[in-house]
Amino acid sequence: MEFLAAALAIGLGALGAGIGNGMIVSKTIEGISRQPELRGTLSTTMFIGVGIVEVVPIIGVVIGFLLYFGAA
Amino acid sequence: MEFLAAALAIGLGALGAGIGNGMIVSKTIEGISRQPELRGTLSTTMFIGVGIVEVVPIIGVVIGFLLYFGAA
Amino acid sequence: MEFLAAALAIGLGALGAGIGNGMIVSKTIEGISRQPELRGTLSTTMFIGVGIVEVVPIIGVVIGFLLYFGAA
Amino acid sequence: MEFLAAALAIGLGALGAGIGNGMIVSKTIEGISRQPELRGTLSTTMFIGVGIVEVVPIIGVVIGFLLYFGAA
Amino acid sequence: MEFLAAALAIGLGALGAGIGNGMIVSKTIEGISRQPELRGTLSTTMFIGVGIVEVVPIIGVVIGFLLYFGAA
Amino acid sequence: MEFLAAALAIGLGALGAGIGNGMIVSKTIEGISRQPELRGTLSTTMFIGVGIVEVVPIIGVVIGFLLYFGAA
Amino acid sequence: MEFLAAALAIGLGALGAGIGNGMIVSKTIEGISRQPELRGTLSTTMFIGVGIVEVVPIIGVVIGFLLYFGAA
Amino acid sequence: MEFLAAALAIGLGALGAGIGNGMIVSKTIEGISRQPELRGTLSTTMFIGVGIVEVVPIIGVVIGFLLYFGAA
Amino acid sequence: MEFLAAALAIGLGALGAGIGNGMIVSKTIEGISRQPELRGTLSTTMFIGVGIVEVVPIIGVVIGFLLYFGAA
Amino acid sequence: MEFLAAALAIGLGALGAGIGNGMIVSKTIEGISRQPELRGTLSTTMFIGVGIVEVVPIIGVVIGFLLYFGAA
Amino acid sequence: MEFLAAALAIGLGALGAGIGNGMIVSKTIEGISRQPELRGTLSTTMFIGVGIVEVVPIIGVVIGFLLYFGAA
Amino acid sequence: MEFLAAALAIGLGALGAGIGNGMIVSKTIEGISRQPELRGTLSTTMFIGVGIVEVVPIIGVVIGFLLYFGAA
Amino acid sequence: MEFLAAALAIGLGALGAGIGNGMIVSKTIEGISRQPELRGTLSTTMFIGVGIVEVVPIIGVVIGFLLYFGAA
Amino acid sequence: MEFLAAALAIGLGALGAGIGNGMIVSKTIEGISRQPELRGTLSTTMFIGVGIVEVVPIIGVVIGFLLYFGAA
Repeated sequence: MEFLAAALAIGLGALGAGIGNGMIVSKTIEGISRQPELRGTLSTTMFIGVGIVEVVPIIGVVIGFLLYFGAA
Repeated sequence: MEFLAAALAIGLGALGAGIGNGMIVSKTIEGISRQPELRGTLSTTMFIGVGIVEVVPIIGVVIGFLLYFGAA
Repeated sequence: MEFLAAALAIGLGALGAGIGNGMIVSKTIEGISRQPELRGTLSTTMFIGVGIVEVVPIIGVVIGFLLYFGAA
Repeated sequence: MEFLAAALAIGLGALGAGIGNGMIVSKTIEGISRQPELRGTLSTTMFIGVGIVEVVPIIGVVIGFLLYFGAA
Repeated sequence: MEFLAAALAIGLGALGAGIGNGMIVSKTIEGISRQPELRGTLSTTMFIGVGIVEVVPIIGVVIGFLLYFGAA
Repeated sequence: MEFLAAALAIGLGALGAGIGNGMIVSKTIEGISRQPELRGTLSTTMFIGVGIVEVVPIIGVVIGFLLYFGAA
Repeated sequence: MEFLAAALAIGLGALGAGIGNGMIVSKTIEGISRQPELRGTLSTTMFIGVGIVEVVPIIGVVIGFLLYFGAA
Repeated sequence: MEFLAAALAIGLGALGAGIGNGMIVSKTIEGISRQPELRGTLSTTMFIGVGIVEVVPIIGVVIGFLLYFGAA
Repeated sequence: MEFLAAALAIGLGALGAGIGNGMIVSKTIEGISRQPELRGTLSTTMFIGVGIVEVVPIIGVVIGFLLYFGAA
Repeated sequence: MEFLAAALAIGLGALGAGIGNGMIVSKTIEGISRQPELRGTLSTTMFIGVGIVEVVPIIGVVIGFLLYFGAA
Repeated sequence: MEFLAAALAIGLGALGAGIGNGMIVSKTIEGISRQPELRGTLSTTMFIGVGIVEVVPIIGVVIGFLLYFGAA
Repeated sequence: MEFLAAALAIGLGALGAGIGNGMIVSKTIEGISRQPELRGTLSTTMFIGVGIVEVVPIIGVVIGFLLYFGAA
Repeated sequence: MEFLAAALAIGLGALGAGIGNGMIVSKTIEGISRQPELRGTLSTTMFIGVGIVEVVPIIGVVIGFLLYFGAA
Repeated sequence: MEFLAAALAIGLGALGAGIGNGMIVSKTIEGISRQPELRGTLSTTMFIGVGIVEVVPIIGVVIGFLLYFGAA
């Protein structure tokens, strides 16, 4: 059961991170292609955003490794 | 069962946080690329918003760690 | 079974809070980037809105902790 | 089984409340950013609306607490 | 089984009421922000609408309480 | 099993009634905000519509009460 | 099993009737708000339409009552 | 099992008939509100269309009655 | 199991036929309301289309009757 | 199990054929109502298209009959 | 289990082929109705496209027949 | 279990290939109908694209045959 | 269980690769049909993109072969 | 169970990576086809974005290999 739990935590986290980051980065690229001189500001906001989005999936990864090595 | 519960709590939390933060940060980047002089105000609102969105997933992470270490 | 219930309550709550808050805060940011002088009014309405949205998920968190510590 | 029922009632209620309130409050913020002088009227309608939306989830919360303390 | 049934009736009712009322109230707020002088008429129609929408979920709540107190 | 059936009948009916009535009433409010002088005609059509939509869920409620009191 | 079947027949019928009638009546209201002088023709078509849509759910209700009283 | 099959046949048929007829009748009403003088032609086409759509659900109803009375 | 199979074949067929025919007939009505003089051509194409769409569901109905009378 | 398999093959095939043919025929009707003089060309392409779409569902029907008569 | 597998392979293949071919052929018809002189080129591309789309479902059909005749 | 696995691998692969190729080929046809002189370039890109999309489903087909003949 | 796992890994990978590559290649074809002189640049970006998208499904294929030959 | 977990982790990761990267790369190609002189900047942002998106699925791949070789 631990293995299935580890897979589920990382799988759902990857799905959530993919959707969230996909929305953020695609909007950033759209913004840069309109106003190239804002490149720095938009990238900064983008990095903050993807950092925030990645928090929970990364913890899910940590839980997944804990589950794996605790049961292996 | 505790392991599956921990994985489910963190996984669903990551999915919810990904959708919510993705919407907020992508709109912020769209707003900055239109009106760069509002950079500060929009970022402040964004940080408040992602903070509010992250509250419940973070507690889900806490529950997940509790479930893991209580059962490990 | 208590652990699964706690995870489900918090996970679904996080999903609902993420969707609801994401819609509210992203519209607020869109509104501020159009009319920056309404910053105060829009933020006030936003705080009321996210407060209302967070009520049920927070209670779900409380139920989750009760379920955890009652069964731990 | 009582614990799972409590979690389900509160979780689905949080999902419904999040969707409903998110639609109402985001439309209110959009309306205020267009016509700031209607701030009072729109807020009043918003409070009535979120009050009506919250009725059933709050009762679900009450049922959830009843289920928890009746079974704990 | 009674507890699960009570939770399901109230949870699905909350979901339905959230979607229905969210559509009605958000359209009302949109209408008022366009034509503020129709405030009274639109609110009256809104109250009738949310009353009609709430009928079945409220009965679901009643069934839920019946199921709870009949089984508690 | 009777209790679950009662909950399912009322819950699905509430979901259907919420979606159907939400569409009808929100369109009515949109129509009134455009042409206030048609208030009477639109309301009449709305009442007929929600009456027709409510027929099957109300019978579902009746079945639900029958199932409850026949099994209680 | 009869009770669950009755609930399912009526519940799915209510969902189908809600979606179908919601689409028809909302379009009728939209049409009347554009051309009020066609009120009679549109209403006639609407009544025929909701009558056709209601045929199968009403039979589902009949089957539901048959299932209930044959098993009660 | 016969009862569940009867309920499923009628329930899915009602869902399909609701979606199909809803699309046809709502388009007819939209067409009449644009060009009232085509009222007869559009209604004729509509009746043919809903007749064709209703064929399979009505047979599902027949199967449902056969299943019910063969098993009752 | 034969009864459930018969119900499933007819139910899914009704759903598919409803969606397919709904799209075809609603487009035909939209086309006639734009260009009434093409009434004949569009109707002919529509009859061919719904005939093609109905092929597989009608065979599903035949299979359903075979399953019913082979098992009754 | 053979009966359920036959029903599933035909049911899913009917769903796929309904969606695919519905898209093709509705576009053909839309095209004819715009440019009636292309009636022949569009119909030819339509017949080829629905023929291609029907290949797999028809084979599903064949498999369904094989499953039925091999098991009956 | 072989029969269910055969049905599933052909059913899912029919669904995929229906969606894919429906998109391709409907776009081709739309293109021909705009520029009839490109009839040949568009048809050639369409035939290549539907040929590519049909590859995997046809192999699914082959697997389905293999499963059927290997188990019959 | 091998048969079900083979069917699942090919069925999901057919679904994925249908969606992916449908999007690519329909866009190609749309592009050619706008700019016929780019016929060669667009077709080349299309062939590369469908080749890339087909890689994984074709391997799924290979796995499916391996599963079938290894278990037959 | 190994066979089902192999099929699931390849099937889900094919679905993901189909959606991702379909979006990338169709956008590339749309871009080339607008600006043919950017053919080289767009193709280069497209190849990088589909390469990145294919990484995880290809590894899923590898896992699938490992699962097959380890269990065959 | 380990094999199913490995397949699930990689399969869900591939789905998430496909959606996320598809959105990012397609937007990049759209941006380059509008403003070719921003080719470098957009590509850089794209590489950062797909790198961030791939983090969690790659870890899912690692977990998958660990699960496979720990159980093989």
